Amino acid sequence: MPDYTLYGFANTASTSTHWLLIELAAASGVTYDFVDVNFTTRAQRDATYLALNPRGRVPTLIVDGHTPVPESTACVLVLAERHPAAHFEPARDSPLRARFLETLVFVANTLLPAFRDWFYAEKDQTDGIVAHGIRLLALQRIKGVFEQLDAQVKEGGYLVSTADEGPTAVDFLFAATLSWDAFVDRLAGTYPNLQTYKSLMRSRPSWKVLNDKEGIESELADGIKPWEEQYLDF
Amino acid sequence: MPDYTLYGFANTASTSTHWLLIELAAASGVTYDFVDVNFTTRAQRDATYLALNPRGRVPTLIVDGHTPVPESTACVLVLAERHPAAHFEPARDSPLRARFLETLVFVANTLLPAFRDWFYAEKDQTDGIVAHGIRLLALQRIKGVFEQLDAQVKEGGYLVSTADEGPTAVDFLFAATLSWDAFVDRLAGTYPNLQTYKSLMRSRPSWKVLNDKEGIESELADGIKPWEEQYLDF
Ligand SMILES: N[C@@H](CCC(=O)N[C@@H](CS)C(=O)NCC(=O)O)C(=O)O
Ligand SMILES: N[C@@H](CCC(=O)N[C@@H](CS)C(=O)NCC(=O)O)C(=O)O
Repeated sequence: MPDYTLYGFANTASTSTHWLLIELAAASGVTYDFVDVNFTTRAQRDATYLALNPRGRVPTLIVDGHTPVPESTACVLVLAERHPAAHFEPARDSPLRARFLETLVFVANTLLPAFRDWFYAEKDQTDGIVAHGIRLLALQRIKGVFEQLDAQVKEGGYLVSTADEGPTAVDFLFAATLSWDAFVDRLAGTYPNLQTYKSLMRSRPSWKVLNDKEGIESELADGIKPWEEQYLDF
Repeated sequence: MPDYTLYGFANTASTSTHWLLIELAAASGVTYDFVDVNFTTRAQRDATYLALNPRGRVPTLIVDGHTPVPESTACVLVLAERHPAAHFEPARDSPLRARFLETLVFVANTLLPAFRDWFYAEKDQTDGIVAHGIRLLALQRIKGVFEQLDAQVKEGGYLVSTADEGPTAVDFLFAATLSWDAFVDRLAGTYPNLQTYKSLMRSRPSWKVLNDKEGIESELADGIKPWEEQYLDF
């Protein structure tokens, strides 16, 4: 039996957990299975999947062979703390600890819900005018977070740690969002420190593995979607 | 110098951190100062406060005499892990650990942003129709979380732990939201397990201290606000 099973779908909220698993496989010999929850057949609504995760969302990470953990932020935190030798979280007595937790929470409760609204405005409710407003508010929030994290990122390093200290779990959570589609990619591109940061994260061997498995760059190559055009004037 | 300084305002996102500090003061002799950030004079926008927390929000918890920690979820987690003897988080090898982190993240990234939208729909953007839509979506999300946590709460116990094991940090984070105003109070009242849970949390001596300091019940007594009336038909 593998150490973990990840239920996910390419280039979604499960990507950060997948990325960290690839890192841990290389650094600490962790084993995992990836189970594809195919959104195109709405597999996230199948009764078997809902039994694991009643919210019908990805990711779900199975730990200890039986405990399902939903929520990407919880998944990366759980993985980081179960594998301390890989140093993906600052130790409890580290002066970086509070900053690490705070940044993780900030990404979790500000950026990720804004992305949910950005991508799901129509699906999560029905009125077209309101969806437009929700999407504008989401965009404003995404830009606010990008601006703050552009200022926070360490010179040549990561969100919480220096280049020498190496990335922490929050970097995989955040950097995965920088690839969500060509529109987000273009938006993030207007923040110079985030560009350097993104290149640094993508220089990791794990990124190549992730990209091969999830086809992230080829999805980006598809370009801006029609409904996104109207928001391009920022 | 006290162990901690909490910048907050009565009956807001800082209430959960305040509650946990009151617990820790009684159980572990922790000392803290509470600094009032008066929203009625917009003190959250003063340059001195923005220097501590550029987001202009409460809470901010000062740890080690100098490190400002924003984000209520991070504040309660930091406090729980710095005072292990008080048992406000399951140990790393506890079977409850993953559930604890997942529930904390779920409250942080689903319930708290929905409350932000519920209370700040007009302030965070300007269009009246859109604010109405945002508020309806927020309400639907709040109900979704209440429903899930009503099902999750342990018989006679807490979100993650039994009555014997005692509450964890996520209980203070969540239970504080059950008092945000008469409207939320009435909404939560329709979920029987949440009602029992709320009574249990309020039977703690710390609740009386918190309520005396923040005047939570007297604020509730003010009743439903005019703009809330239209949403009462649920
Ligand atoms: N808070 C969750 C959000 C997960 C989420 O929204 N996942 C999306 C993909 S990015 C999903 O599963 N969507 C399928 C659906 O809603 O039907 C997390 O961070 O894990
Ligand atoms: N994500 C933050 C949200 C904090 C927040 O929105 N606080 C509100 C009070 S409930 C605030 O400071 N509002 C003042 C303002 O926005 O001007 C947390 O959980 O700490």
